Amino acid sequence: MGAVTRLISVISGGIGLIFTIFLVFNVLEKSPGDEKMQKLSKAIQVGAKSFIIAEYRILFIVLALLAVFLWKISSHSMAISFLMGSIFSALAGYFGLSISTRANSRTTYGATKSLKDALTISFNGGAVMGMTVVSLGLIGLGGVFFLFDGNVEIMSGYAMGASFAALFARVGGGIFTKAADIGADLVGKVEANIPEDDPRNPAVIADNVGDNVGDVAGMGADLYESYVGAIFSASVLGGIDYSIKGAIFPFFVASSGLLLSILGIILVNLFIKKSDNVEPQKALDFGTYITSFFQAIAVIVLSKIILGSFKPALIAILGMMVGILIGAVTEYYTSKKPIDDLAKSAPSGPAPLIINGLALGMESTLLPVLFIGISIVLSFKLYGLYGIAIAALGMLSTLGITLSIDAYGPIADNAGGIAQMAKLDPHVREITDKLDTVGNTTAAIGKGFAIGSAALTALALFASYTQEVNISVVDLNHANVFVALLAGAMLPFLFSSLVLKAVGKAANLMVEEVRRQFKEIVGLIDGKAEPNYGKCVKIATSGALKHMVLPSLIAIIAPILTYLLLGKEAVAGMLAGATVCGVMLAIFMANSGGAWDNAKKTIESGELGGKGSLSHKASIVGDTVGDPLKDTAGPSINILIKLMSIVSIVIIPILEVFLS
Amino acid sequence: MGAVTRLISVISGGIGLIFTIFLVFNVLEKSPGDEKMQKLSKAIQVGAKSFIIAEYRILFIVLALLAVFLWKISSHSMAISFLMGSIFSALAGYFGLSISTRANSRTTYGATKSLKDALTISFNGGAVMGMTVVSLGLIGLGGVFFLFDGNVEIMSGYAMGASFAALFARVGGGIFTKAADIGADLVGKVEANIPEDDPRNPAVIADNVGDNVGDVAGMGADLYESYVGAIFSASVLGGIDYSIKGAIFPFFVASSGLLLSILGIILVNLFIKKSDNVEPQKALDFGTYITSFFQAIAVIVLSKIILGSFKPALIAILGMMVGILIGAVTEYYTSKKPIDDLAKSAPSGPAPLIINGLALGMESTLLPVLFIGISIVLSFKLYGLYGIAIAALGMLSTLGITLSIDAYGPIADNAGGIAQMAKLDPHVREITDKLDTVGNTTAAIGKGFAIGSAALTALALFASYTQEVNISVVDLNHANVFVALLAGAMLPFLFSSLVLKAVGKAANLMVEEVRRQFKEIVGLIDGKAEPNYGKCVKIATSGALKHMVLPSLIAIIAPILTYLLLGKEAVAGMLAGATVCGVMLAIFMANSGGAWDNAKKTIESGELGGKGSLSHKASIVGDTVGDPLKDTAGPSINILIKLMSIVSIVIIPILEVFLS
Repeated sequence: MGAVTRLISVISGGIGLIFTIFLVFNVLEKSPGDEKMQKLSKAIQVGAKSFIIAEYRILFIVLALLAVFLWKISSHSMAISFLMGSIFSALAGYFGLSISTRANSRTTYGATKSLKDALTISFNGGAVMGMTVVSLGLIGLGGVFFLFDGNVEIMSGYAMGASFAALFARVGGGIFTKAADIGADLVGKVEANIPEDDPRNPAVIADNVGDNVGDVAGMGADLYESYVGAIFSASVLGGIDYSIKGAIFPFFVASSGLLLSILGIILVNLFIKKSDNVEPQKALDFGTYITSFFQAIAVIVLSKIILGSFKPALIAILGMMVGILIGAVTEYYTSKKPIDDLAKSAPSGPAPLIINGLALGMESTLLPVLFIGISIVLSFKLYGLYGIAIAALGMLSTLGITLSIDAYGPIADNAGGIAQMAKLDPHVREITDKLDTVGNTTAAIGKGFAIGSAALTALALFASYTQEVNISVVDLNHANVFVALLAGAMLPFLFSSLVLKAVGKAANLMVEEVRRQFKEIVGLIDGKAEPNYGKCVKIATSGALKHMVLPSLIAIIAPILTYLLLGKEAVAGMLAGATVCGVMLAIFMANSGGAWDNAKKTIESGELGGKGSLSHKASIVGDTVGDPLKDTAGPSINILIKLMSIVSIVIIPILEVFLS
Repeated sequence: MGAVTRLISVISGGIGLIFTIFLVFNVLEKSPGDEKMQKLSKAIQVGAKSFIIAEYRILFIVLALLAVFLWKISSHSMAISFLMGSIFSALAGYFGLSISTRANSRTTYGATKSLKDALTISFNGGAVMGMTVVSLGLIGLGGVFFLFDGNVEIMSGYAMGASFAALFARVGGGIFTKAADIGADLVGKVEANIPEDDPRNPAVIADNVGDNVGDVAGMGADLYESYVGAIFSASVLGGIDYSIKGAIFPFFVASSGLLLSILGIILVNLFIKKSDNVEPQKALDFGTYITSFFQAIAVIVLSKIILGSFKPALIAILGMMVGILIGAVTEYYTSKKPIDDLAKSAPSGPAPLIINGLALGMESTLLPVLFIGISIVLSFKLYGLYGIAIAALGMLSTLGITLSIDAYGPIADNAGGIAQMAKLDPHVREITDKLDTVGNTTAAIGKGFAIGSAALTALALFASYTQEVNISVVDLNHANVFVALLAGAMLPFLFSSLVLKAVGKAANLMVEEVRRQFKEIVGLIDGKAEPNYGKCVKIATSGALKHMVLPSLIAIIAPILTYLLLGKEAVAGMLAGATVCGVMLAIFMANSGGAWDNAKKTIESGELGGKGSLSHKASIVGDTVGDPLKDTAGPSINILIKLMSIVSIVIIPILEVFLS
């Protein structure tokens, strides 16, 4: 196979990057609005930058230590590959964040002109994140594949690097965003009685920064990890079953997905341009469907040419469909009938609302499990363990456009915040609200997609682990494996508990600071003095960074300890327990949280007593309970299960050599 | 081996029953108090009886259908054994309930004389439940073992019968008790502003009935099932490894435990009699420790004589210790420092209290998993799969006294209610409150014990299943098994969701009824007219019965469907997933719920603002959220995981024959 073939992903990734540059220009050439809007946008930029730099400082220290460790016990190539995996993730996060925090006021300004303009800017702003993630992911992993001739260990280092960066981004970003949100809401909205996104609220900038670091950078790093993990495991398992052809097929599938995502993004732009009365949801859905359609064709062709069979294509398409279906389930449980029913329990008070919300989230695990289950069984039947990895890959292959749509949401949200803070004409806010509503839907779908892809990726990584350490059987009849399964099932609970407590502590500090500012800054409440936004950003930052390390340790210690105490089969059992229980908990938390959020919105729209009613108060309790579940603990579990798998793949073989 | 040896458990069970009759006389000969107290006690008796008869009506219809089914596809012996298993459970529930609802006013009357009297009556009242459960369990299973010469299939029918009865008792009783509780609290305490246990509250009798049907009959049936399941699985696995000696050893261990529980109960009575200033907690602890101590000696002797090794004794003692340790963990997380910390978040409002309570419950999964894990690994290392069953058996062998202490709690609780409703001297209430406080601790320990024993029993049943259907390997590397594991992990969530919703619906009807009575019955609030207690009992009953069937179906359908779609190895995977995830969810729910309950009590004792403060209001929300988690959904999961295992053991071999 020629060098060009092996370099396919680097080439496609390069094309992706060039396209991203066009997108960046396209966004930046738009007017950032008047001085006030620019100032607000600037404050968000500065806040986001200061957070991410502080986060990366800690991340890089941890990375450096781990890299030295890997160098010593493995090879310098491994260490370099590991660093690349995480630095590329960090770079993607940095670029994505830089643009999303610049696209916000431009979207607001666009909204002063038309919905079309605002939609285009926010979508293209999100597309920068989407395209950077897939381009850097492909260039990086593809580059390592090329340079080290498909060496599995060294590729696994890359995937581990991606996982570490993701953990810090998700956990840190998740704590930041909720601490800021709770601080802004609890003191600003409830105690000081000023509206959402009011510039007098000292935590308002931190809140807007939080949307970006949580939903843009955090989500991006999460899916970057899934993307890399899915390609990696497919390449490993394919290499075992079909040698070089099997190992290279995943890179082709990812490459075509990337290129077709570019096409999709261009088509969405054209779709918006051509429509007279554009409906944002339709434009975005069009992007997803058209890209998926072309990718399906591409996969059929690639599958037949490279592997001489249509089966892999069938599996990849199945994976794509499952991704879309799980998104639809998430949307159903956080919008339609279930939300109307849930909201109806609000007049009885917060307790019934919370019980019913918990029940809703628990119920919502059924269908995703069904879809994931069917796809696993069919993929395995058609193509063995490789099949499972291909399903994950298929789901993630169109990530370029999926993530673009996902990252669009927080930009639209921020744009609305800026319109509010800058006191623009209400009709501007109307437009941004329209975009924001669609953003909530895409966020719900995106969360479902992130969980679904994490589940399939974790399973593919699980399979790769058993292959890498030569375990032919993971027998539940063996006590060590069963105990490890039990322990694994416990880990997502323990991890969530740490993360939830971290949010509580950080939020407490934030509440105190906001109260202090309202009390000590004379004229603040009358709008005559300015709050100290920076201080609030700093508190959320330090709270997030302080508490993100302990949960991360679980992911490293658990596999190593399990291996030392119970053996390598038990590690597989532990991963299985953590995966199945983690997926349930993640779905449950995401959907309960989303449901309470939307039940509150339903009531705020005037139903069941509307704003200020007892129902509304109950719904605020529900929303506050749900926030850290859906935006911090839930999404972080995605990372936990992937990271533990990849740590096992990297570390256990090395430990085996050392201890033998 | 002689007939006497084989009949050992029937003989011990018979002795247990005779002793129980003494206990019954001992309780009934005490004065039931004045007319008013008798009337209240009578109302509770009638309510409990009407519920349990209505429940048994539905239970027997289901049992009859299943028995006919078993007769047709298996044998009439199987059907009879199945019916015996459930009818004995129902009988134990009926007797236990009859006495607990009669011991309540007698305890109140005893409290008018002294703490000693009150403690003795309530403990002996609870001991009737404890002894009936173990005696009938041993006579039944031992009788089937004797009559059918240790036939495994027929014994499994008995265990399945026990499981079905337990499911209905736990789910039905759990829904009843919480619907009544929420109705009484929400309308009586919050809306009408009358104190707890006020006779003007129409739901007050239903509430007191609920304590009995939930915590006495429900808990009894739950542990009866674990007890039977543990002996059964130990006998099966022992029979495989050590033939008849292995099969009969468990019956000897259970018999000695039963006889020593009698000794323990007598010693507790003496301890109370001899103490000048008896501390209830000490008396009960003394009972647990002394019985465990003698049982440890007995097991060492039995183990050496029957199996010629000390290893089984070591394992059984380990199991006993784990049971005590898990109880201690539960107590820690629902009393000491964690509760003080949790209560401190109440002043910030219900949302932080709920988030921190969720985090506490999640964290509390760590230690029990550690203890269970260690005991499984050691038992397996020492004695294979048989070892795991012996650990479960060891834990449950002293159930006679453990359950006695457990069932004491609701009697003391009821006694306090009667003192309040009958407007007795405050110092009587002081004594019953003292007993009640201890009851809360024993309830927490009991809940932990129920979960721990369910986990070990489920694992032992899992092992029995794989042996019964001749699966040598349950390989997680096989897609079907992994998917089944995933589906199994989902089931406790789906099941909990159904149960939680059922509580919500039943509670709603109750709330409406109580409101209606307050509105329509003239003079009720002034104490001049009587409420219609019976109507409230009826509503809780019909709500419970209507909603207990659907969740039960899951337990039957899931194993069968998994078998048909994915095969018998996958059934094992499904059971494993449900067990590990179910155990976590059960611990999490029990401890979160218990923690909120006690945080509320801490605040009511005057801390953080005391009664009527905003903290108190927040803590009431927490308590209301926690109630159905800890008293309905959580405990029901114990049954779900055991029942699915036993259904698999019974049905899958039969299906295998049919489909081959």
